Amino acid sequence: MTASHCDRPIGLWLNGARGSVATTAIAGLLALRAGLTRSTGCVTDTDLLRDAPLAPWTDIVIGGHDIVDTPLEKRAESLVDSGVVPGPLLEAVRGSLAGVEADLRPGYDARNDTGTQAGAAERLAADIADFRARHDLSRVVVVNVSSTEPPAAYDPAHDELDALEAALREPGRQVLPGSSLAAYAAFQAGCGFVDFTPSTGARLPALERLAQRQGVPFAGSDGKTGETLLRTALAPMFSVRALHVLSWAGINLLGGGDGATLEDPANAKSKLSSKSGVLPAMLGHDVTAPLHIDNVPDLGDHKTAWDHVSFEGFLGVRMSMQLTWSGVDSTLAAPLVLDLARLTAAAHAAGHAGPVRQLGFFFKDPIDSDEHALAEQGRILAEWANSL
Amino acid sequence: MTASHCDRPIGLWLNGARGSVATTAIAGLLALRAGLTRSTGCVTDTDLLRDAPLAPWTDIVIGGHDIVDTPLEKRAESLVDSGVVPGPLLEAVRGSLAGVEADLRPGYDARNDTGTQAGAAERLAADIADFRARHDLSRVVVVNVSSTEPPAAYDPAHDELDALEAALREPGRQVLPGSSLAAYAAFQAGCGFVDFTPSTGARLPALERLAQRQGVPFAGSDGKTGETLLRTALAPMFSVRALHVLSWAGINLLGGGDGATLEDPANAKSKLSSKSGVLPAMLGHDVTAPLHIDNVPDLGDHKTAWDHVSFEGFLGVRMSMQLTWSGVDSTLAAPLVLDLARLTAAAHAAGHAGPVRQLGFFFKDPIDSDEHALAEQGRILAEWANSL
Amino acid sequence: MTASHCDRPIGLWLNGARGSVATTAIAGLLALRAGLTRSTGCVTDTDLLRDAPLAPWTDIVIGGHDIVDTPLEKRAESLVDSGVVPGPLLEAVRGSLAGVEADLRPGYDARNDTGTQAGAAERLAADIADFRARHDLSRVVVVNVSSTEPPAAYDPAHDELDALEAALREPGRQVLPGSSLAAYAAFQAGCGFVDFTPSTGARLPALERLAQRQGVPFAGSDGKTGETLLRTALAPMFSVRALHVLSWAGINLLGGGDGATLEDPANAKSKLSSKSGVLPAMLGHDVTAPLHIDNVPDLGDHKTAWDHVSFEGFLGVRMSMQLTWSGVDSTLAAPLVLDLARLTAAAHAAGHAGPVRQLGFFFKDPIDSDEHALAEQGRILAEWANSL
Amino acid sequence: MTASHCDRPIGLWLNGARGSVATTAIAGLLALRAGLTRSTGCVTDTDLLRDAPLAPWTDIVIGGHDIVDTPLEKRAESLVDSGVVPGPLLEAVRGSLAGVEADLRPGYDARNDTGTQAGAAERLAADIADFRARHDLSRVVVVNVSSTEPPAAYDPAHDELDALEAALREPGRQVLPGSSLAAYAAFQAGCGFVDFTPSTGARLPALERLAQRQGVPFAGSDGKTGETLLRTALAPMFSVRALHVLSWAGINLLGGGDGATLEDPANAKSKLSSKSGVLPAMLGHDVTAPLHIDNVPDLGDHKTAWDHVSFEGFLGVRMSMQLTWSGVDSTLAAPLVLDLARLTAAAHAAGHAGPVRQLGFFFKDPIDSDEHALAEQGRILAEWANSL
Repeated sequence: MTASHCDRPIGLWLNGARGSVATTAIAGLLALRAGLTRSTGCVTDTDLLRDAPLAPWTDIVIGGHDIVDTPLEKRAESLVDSGVVPGPLLEAVRGSLAGVEADLRPGYDARNDTGTQAGAAERLAADIADFRARHDLSRVVVVNVSSTEPPAAYDPAHDELDALEAALREPGRQVLPGSSLAAYAAFQAGCGFVDFTPSTGARLPALERLAQRQGVPFAGSDGKTGETLLRTALAPMFSVRALHVLSWAGINLLGGGDGATLEDPANAKSKLSSKSGVLPAMLGHDVTAPLHIDNVPDLGDHKTAWDHVSFEGFLGVRMSMQLTWSGVDSTLAAPLVLDLARLTAAAHAAGHAGPVRQLGFFFKDPIDSDEHALAEQGRILAEWANSL
Repeated sequence: MTASHCDRPIGLWLNGARGSVATTAIAGLLALRAGLTRSTGCVTDTDLLRDAPLAPWTDIVIGGHDIVDTPLEKRAESLVDSGVVPGPLLEAVRGSLAGVEADLRPGYDARNDTGTQAGAAERLAADIADFRARHDLSRVVVVNVSSTEPPAAYDPAHDELDALEAALREPGRQVLPGSSLAAYAAFQAGCGFVDFTPSTGARLPALERLAQRQGVPFAGSDGKTGETLLRTALAPMFSVRALHVLSWAGINLLGGGDGATLEDPANAKSKLSSKSGVLPAMLGHDVTAPLHIDNVPDLGDHKTAWDHVSFEGFLGVRMSMQLTWSGVDSTLAAPLVLDLARLTAAAHAAGHAGPVRQLGFFFKDPIDSDEHALAEQGRILAEWANSL
Repeated sequence: MTASHCDRPIGLWLNGARGSVATTAIAGLLALRAGLTRSTGCVTDTDLLRDAPLAPWTDIVIGGHDIVDTPLEKRAESLVDSGVVPGPLLEAVRGSLAGVEADLRPGYDARNDTGTQAGAAERLAADIADFRARHDLSRVVVVNVSSTEPPAAYDPAHDELDALEAALREPGRQVLPGSSLAAYAAFQAGCGFVDFTPSTGARLPALERLAQRQGVPFAGSDGKTGETLLRTALAPMFSVRALHVLSWAGINLLGGGDGATLEDPANAKSKLSSKSGVLPAMLGHDVTAPLHIDNVPDLGDHKTAWDHVSFEGFLGVRMSMQLTWSGVDSTLAAPLVLDLARLTAAAHAAGHAGPVRQLGFFFKDPIDSDEHALAEQGRILAEWANSL
Repeated sequence: MTASHCDRPIGLWLNGARGSVATTAIAGLLALRAGLTRSTGCVTDTDLLRDAPLAPWTDIVIGGHDIVDTPLEKRAESLVDSGVVPGPLLEAVRGSLAGVEADLRPGYDARNDTGTQAGAAERLAADIADFRARHDLSRVVVVNVSSTEPPAAYDPAHDELDALEAALREPGRQVLPGSSLAAYAAFQAGCGFVDFTPSTGARLPALERLAQRQGVPFAGSDGKTGETLLRTALAPMFSVRALHVLSWAGINLLGGGDGATLEDPANAKSKLSSKSGVLPAMLGHDVTAPLHIDNVPDLGDHKTAWDHVSFEGFLGVRMSMQLTWSGVDSTLAAPLVLDLARLTAAAHAAGHAGPVRQLGFFFKDPIDSDEHALAEQGRILAEWANSL
């Protein structure tokens, strides 16, 4: 794995670095680097990707942006309380957290930032470039794990890079949502970008153009960690067995920051929309599919999802199945964030620019791909990554 | 699909032709031939196998053996009562059932057959050959859908064809269980054989030798229709995502003839053993996996299975999922029986002799294959069948 | 049971007589009268109410109002198709359906009725009185099983009987929703009234006054047949064991007419409101309780509800439970409609006027009662009914 | 509550004092005494029993027997690891654990005790009497929470107290299983006895006689904490609604010491037998009810139970429901152990001798009672306890 990996370490820059997913990824990477935990949940450590040229855990450095300033240590303690990070593990890495803390910078906050968005982007890009220089990193991958935004309103400036850059320079105009400004800054700094949320991120024509021009890869959107992961493993079973799915209803119960964010219908719209394309694509037809996300504070990061599938078999006979998924969201997401940093850095090193559709395996709403079936996505990922 | 299919029809000879699965397959085929139902549940009618040289539904003729003599019509009526066959569909095909009835012959019954097993096999083979001749069939596939037997005790005569044939001629000696005698007779008659149950069937070295010598294909064992189907769709999800499965417990509730048969621990042993290899093969390690099959008469053919999976993710955090499957067993099995008849006939036509491992997609305990992952099995099946 | 029941038969007048619940109740009563089915699901036939003075099945006559004119026979046939009424049972009672059909009359339809509501009520009451006279019935109970209405907007005329009657006489004014006009007509005709739906029905001060004046009993609201029934059996378990419920989330999937009606948020509001009071009342505190009702047409009358309960035990440890209920709504409701007819007639005979809180056992939102615990409701019901 | 409670404290003597349930009860009581936790899960602190004359938490002292000698502190630490006892709570009571540790004595171990059982009983009784004297306790309740034993083989000496005492004196004869010897010793020491397990305990005619003679109360058997608790809340729902239960299947997955103990079919037999009477008693008829208990080590104390109920409603229509219970066994059991100590001491103080059937509320297999319905048991308990 390290044969073709270049000598200098890589950087992982987290947009939303003090959130649950980010903090879990940080504590986890520190533990992996110190050999204190196994890499359970990390796809890049499995046989599937055995020939991919990936940076070893010890050669990954983390920094990031966030708009809040709660100390990482405090966030990690609250993750211990909610059962996401084991107490003894936090004790073991507590010392190293300070090192990461020193590499965190204030993020872009649309509500407070009074200058132009161009100025903000410049500042963000400078933070990342400085991080790269200080640690002598071969390259940096920016991963967006900040709170889900509402869908962005269409703006003609999103379509053309020139128009976008002009708009960014207009005082008082906020042409890009935060996630897209983070992508813009990443590209300007010469970094790959990954959108782990359903926010707009790099998915605007003008930003894709910029990534191509800068020769940097990007991937997304919306990490596939729970109910949708299950659906992309199961829906192909119905298709391959010629069983006709009549309806597929679902409900998600979760608390924590994510639960509160998604309680706002505007934010939930992005998530529901990112989830909704999956079933018709895999089943080959539309299907009645009510889907709910409820904020249930007592569950914290422990998400419970229930799915009910009604289907028809031979001679029109009706049958059904149900699933209950009890997963810990940050636990499921954090290792994928680390995986994506390694893989996107490898893609960057191999000269890939623009969207990397082969990383669709990780996402609910894969860029440039209609393939949602998990097994097939895994095959595509492995074929690609092992020949980088 | 019919381009390369030869002109004469094929035959499907059911061992256990008056059972639930067989009766559903018979009523279903009659309905398909008459254009009265869609082929939901039939894999061979999907795009996956669009280039396979398969006999059209109208070119399949059914006959079979059974040790009971309940009229097919009566069996079909009881399947209407239990919701497996729609009443109006039975009315529509009731007339044609008589045609199939005329092609059913008494099967081999170890408890009553007083001659040698060689004599019995000769009679069975003659029934099949006669069926083939009367209908001018290009070839016949024998599918075993009779009740599950206990595991066969080892006998040295199972290893060598000569020794087996000598043993078959010994008066009073029952060297082969019923399912294996059916395979022997099928091979002697120059027919392919499919074991849809976990019984021994063709899985003895001497019988494999015979199949090779006769140039006929065989496939098995134990049709994958419910809980195990789900497991082979889901277990690969855990593997590909590097999630460590700690335990996978299951319980199956079913009534009907199958429920009663499997209430006998000797019979259940075959079924449990056929199911037990699946998880370790897919997960790559042993796993605590208690598994129960209970006879719950009121459920009839409506099988309900519950699975509980406990797994570990990043930083050792424990999570779980549950599944409830409410399927109608004969509904799920019958279209696969029709699929296997078409595919085995095509393999035979293409000159395949001996075990066809590419048909592992259909089975809990695939012959000559360690591949249990459903998606990969589907890929293998399609690649093979489309190039026959 | 019949000892103290008076000699003449009683009448059950269904408002919404051609709906699923009504048709099931009609077919069921005809079958009970003919001794063709057991009274499974009928509380009034159990030991619990062994001393209540109830009319025997053979002494109950059915008539009713509906705004549609689909023949009962056709409705019953569609219930056979959806598995609510067994085919052979329909054949056995098909002849008697014509008798009930002859006692059905056009209901009040706010969209088409152009006269005053007073005139409409007079017509409705006359229909019922005529039914009572023609069949020489001792008394008639009107049960509302028509589609759920949106919550009624407050009108000062709802508070005073005089004001209400004046408003009813105003041309073009629709002061009462359909369900309340049905209650008004029932009371004017001297009949008891039962609201089996969450619609407003008799629950207006002016109507309660009328019932008292006419000396007739009424009961409601919203038959407790599925998820709520379960909740009122289970929530007391948590209370009596001092386990602290943190959240109780639920989702209901159903098709059929009910699914379509409740897809309209205005109608669903009545249902959700009727369900929402149950948990706090039983648990003694507010609880996070998201609740959804989804229209899933393929499920028809087969309602599936999932509940997830999260609770805290000793030393603050978190635990959970889940429930899946797969019930057939009309099957569960119809016998209760028959029970309520018998019990309300008995209450009427015993001289009860106004709301009968002892019938709260049957309802999601019991009139004049905070008692929701099923076992306690059963005790109250039995004590009351057995001493009528 | 304390009005009529006498001045001196009471004692709780745990047989199996170093097990999970006992350690949780000990840590919990210490926390309750110190006001560090709420009494969630303790029935005796609810309004239901507001008038019962119960010892306050601060007036309960714990001691006990065990055959292992793992320090309580170590056991408590392992309960922290498995999520049964919160870490901060253990820190807060760690100091007080030593006090309880000083009151633990070696239990009776049939495999090592070489003297007569009479001698062993004398030693056990002396330990308890000494505990009572040292702490100046008004009375002591012995609660058996040791591992489940196989059902005891019948011995004629179990029927008569004289014969039993003679047998106890025979060298080398083990006429009583450990749980019954504990009951015998408790009675000899003048203490009440509670059997929280399905072991034989006090349920032998000779021991009942002894309890009567000594004027001490006893209660049991087998604390109702999970699946059976749910069943006794739900089965009455089917009865009171006249729904006919056709089958009720169940499976229990658990690890920990209990899982390992119950993996031995001999031990499981006691548990399965204790659970099996519940459904027929509540439903009023026999029912197909397969039931499994599986050892799934990774689940530890987190027990998961799944129940599937199939039932018939009006017109013979079939429906079903499912339950999944995810409970922490020791968390559910420990507060009941404390409840039973308080209630049995109060019964003793009030002069009750022999079996206390009013405590059936707490047990799967209540002594001297056929009442299993939870709500009714709660009513009986409250009526009795509040008038002590």
